[in-house]
Amino acid sequence: MVIQAEATTPSAILDRASLLLDAFDGPGRLTLAQIVRRTGLPRSSAHRMLDRLVQLRWLRREGRDYELGIRLMELGSLAVHQDRLHRAAMPFLHELHRVTGFVVHLAVLDGPDVVYLDKVGGELSAVVPTRVGGRRPAACTAVGKAILAYSDERRIADALAGQAGARTRYSITTKAQLDTELDKVRAHGIAVEREESLPGFGCIAAPIGDLGEAAVAAVSVCGPVDRMLFDHRLSAPVRTTALNIWRHVDDGRVRVHPTLQQHPRPLGVGRSYADRRGPRTA
Amino acid sequence: MVIQAEATTPSAILDRASLLLDAFDGPGRLTLAQIVRRTGLPRSSAHRMLDRLVQLRWLRREGRDYELGIRLMELGSLAVHQDRLHRAAMPFLHELHRVTGFVVHLAVLDGPDVVYLDKVGGELSAVVPTRVGGRRPAACTAVGKAILAYSDERRIADALAGQAGARTRYSITTKAQLDTELDKVRAHGIAVEREESLPGFGCIAAPIGDLGEAAVAAVSVCGPVDRMLFDHRLSAPVRTTALNIWRHVDDGRVRVHPTLQQHPRPLGVGRSYADRRGPRTA
Repeated sequence: MVIQAEATTPSAILDRASLLLDAFDGPGRLTLAQIVRRTGLPRSSAHRMLDRLVQLRWLRREGRDYELGIRLMELGSLAVHQDRLHRAAMPFLHELHRVTGFVVHLAVLDGPDVVYLDKVGGELSAVVPTRVGGRRPAACTAVGKAILAYSDERRIADALAGQAGARTRYSITTKAQLDTELDKVRAHGIAVEREESLPGFGCIAAPIGDLGEAAVAAVSVCGPVDRMLFDHRLSAPVRTTALNIWRHVDDGRVRVHPTLQQHPRPLGVGRSYADRRGPRTA
Repeated sequence: MVIQAEATTPSAILDRASLLLDAFDGPGRLTLAQIVRRTGLPRSSAHRMLDRLVQLRWLRREGRDYELGIRLMELGSLAVHQDRLHRAAMPFLHELHRVTGFVVHLAVLDGPDVVYLDKVGGELSAVVPTRVGGRRPAACTAVGKAILAYSDERRIADALAGQAGARTRYSITTKAQLDTELDKVRAHGIAVEREESLPGFGCIAAPIGDLGEAAVAAVSVCGPVDRMLFDHRLSAPVRTTALNIWRHVDDGRVRVHPTLQQHPRPLGVGRSYADRRGPRTA
């Protein structure tokens, strides 16, 4: 006869493992005592599972401290690399960065947040405090608004409900504000954000997907708000990039050559951010 | 009385979850039948665990196909971001890329392979087929040789034993070759690799760590082998970068300003790869 204790069903174990790993979201290094406190798991059970996770290299142990391990780095990198949307988008993201000089993001919606799948940015990249795998409240970001404008009402409501306070004094906080903003996105096919997510920075985003159905992702250019051109000179290449990505991911057989030069007016955006700052002082 | 079936101990469940996720290393998208074939797990057990992993967003399901999910992207990105070595290294990696124009890698040794923790490369980045979280046989790479030269005999033996066939016709395959090579690294503090890992590419690496004890990582510059300067003009800034990273990670209080300009002879490497190719055609 085999009687399984409730806590040892496969699902319960996986939930516990997930809880253990989630505990590292923030502090980075944790002792057993801290992990027990953060997860509420029994000490002996947590200890046994941590040991195994170290053996599997999902965690790493240094003295009394546990940290996220190299196998998670590998699996995470593989997840991004294998993502079909990301693979289709990559050459177009690099091209958009090359042509505009700004930091380019590819993002998807996940609950109330956007999660960045890629960030291409050269020197300016270090200045913009976003990272691949990082999240931001969707309603504060251009990529988030671009996706929400082509999402159902439930997801739009989720985005506001789950938002943990406004990011900056310009962030959208009410349903009325968000509805007005999403109407604008639908009218122009472009979402704009000025210091709503990060003080000093602005973004222009376009939705990716069959917009008659829903957006699956968005692409944006992002930079210092006083250097962004909030008109067609930036919005046109961003929109073209979104269309090219979707054409490419939708039908793997179509080999779209990644170029924005075909667009009639790439003017003004051909010089990079670095160029516009004047000569290098290196 | 509680009797636990062997397969439902927490460790066994974690091993199964690990096995399930490892199955995605390669193909990317898998059906339940394919997963069962690759892992050897009972179908019903695999199915239940897959369902839970989808709920936890470690996997994503699209129709009959399973893929790695967004939570793994997040955890993986967090693991890289929280890594103390990586955090200390970042500004120096960007500086080394800026000064040399080549692709810069930060890597650690894991079994017989190196795993890349970061890759900084601008335009050239797309040409060099490495990725963060990716692996390569240590004995074929400059970063691998740099670390192995300051590792114990067991790790050196592991590196050759675990190597799944030579990468190119220049790759090191015998213990004698590797020993000669590691002696050179110890003599100069620099490891060199010419088309041993990737046809057409070369690398120059320096070990990071207390070299009286062991190297914990390595940093390298990598580029088309015919454009690399295999002398002090590249090896000096690579070595300086490795020293700066170690000073910075070793003692968090020391705020080292990331600059290579202090080096007496940064000559020749100040122009980027892109510059040397001639003016942009954008």
